[in-house]
Amino acid sequence: MDATKKSDETTIPIRESKSGKSNYAPTIVATTKATDEAKGGWRRGVAIFDFILRLCAIAAALAATTTMGTTEQTLPFFTQFFQFQASYDDLPTFSFFVIANAIASGYLVLSLPFSIVGIVRPHVVGVRLLLLICDIVMVALTTAAASAATAIVYLAHNGNTNTNWPAICQQFNDFCQSVSGAVVASLIAAAIFMFLVLLSAIALKRN
Amino acid sequence: MDATKKSDETTIPIRESKSGKSNYAPTIVATTKATDEAKGGWRRGVAIFDFILRLCAIAAALAATTTMGTTEQTLPFFTQFFQFQASYDDLPTFSFFVIANAIASGYLVLSLPFSIVGIVRPHVVGVRLLLLICDIVMVALTTAAASAATAIVYLAHNGNTNTNWPAICQQFNDFCQSVSGAVVASLIAAAIFMFLVLLSAIALKRN
Repeated sequence: MDATKKSDETTIPIRESKSGKSNYAPTIVATTKATDEAKGGWRRGVAIFDFILRLCAIAAALAATTTMGTTEQTLPFFTQFFQFQASYDDLPTFSFFVIANAIASGYLVLSLPFSIVGIVRPHVVGVRLLLLICDIVMVALTTAAASAATAIVYLAHNGNTNTNWPAICQQFNDFCQSVSGAVVASLIAAAIFMFLVLLSAIALKRN
Repeated sequence: MDATKKSDETTIPIRESKSGKSNYAPTIVATTKATDEAKGGWRRGVAIFDFILRLCAIAAALAATTTMGTTEQTLPFFTQFFQFQASYDDLPTFSFFVIANAIASGYLVLSLPFSIVGIVRPHVVGVRLLLLICDIVMVALTTAAASAATAIVYLAHNGNTNTNWPAICQQFNDFCQSVSGAVVASLIAAAIFMFLVLLSAIALKRN
């Protein structure tokens, strides 16, 4: 009795493994489906993060634009012929700064719908590649604006004896402080753009 | 004779399509393999292009570094106390320019082996993502160096009456021309870096 049971038992596993294939098959399919959805969810998370970062970048770029654009300082003394006044459009670099950051702000607002498309359809490649290309250009634009303005602000603070360029921040202290703030905001926007490029690349990559 | 041939012929295609399945199967496999290899080849082409672009970027960054670094001009007249001389380290922005472009050149040389790995193994994701991240940083670095130097060169050429900064390029004409050349070389390097980021993203993307 025990011996026959054992001989039966030896055959049972083989039969199970043969007939069990059709039972296991749906389980396997279900697992694959779950992994696929997890992948989509992971991409969606990246897309949502992309959207939030774009909102932060809009805030930074707008802050840079408005701070620089509204900065002007009039000194409390004046001569017979002219008043001492400093404004952003006295220096072409600061005008470029305002224009570049305004372009960046405008682009960011226009890119929000595309970012939403990325959230709704995480697997679409074309939109993400378009955003990536535009973001690279914006990295260059905002970095250029910020660093050019930094170079000028540094000169305004310290002057340069070799070229006989006097420091002007002793007189226009408030002006220089506002401009420095705008530069920092623009640098933050540039850093966010760099992160957005990286996020787009990660969302694009195959698993 | 002709009629029987025709009736034979009508059955032949049916028989062929039934028995031919096993004959067609290897052909289909071969086609799929070819497409797979074509995909690998496409990625490999991108990787080779990446390598060539890196060589161009090395040339541009090195040209920018050496042009700026070796530029100095001594005016043919001098006073009792000092000689009129212009060198890149008179202005901190130009020193930053030299350092940034030297870093970019060094990074590019170090990145060549990784680019070769991308050619040998077109499907490896990690190396390409690493190159992409570093390339984004280099886009920012070279753009910052180039645009800051541009802002200063513009000042040197035109001066600024609002801030009492005189133009110095009337005296130091050769110096200004060399510096402008270095800035252009650095801008070319920045543009190549932007293109490298795009190439890495395309190589990363799923089909």
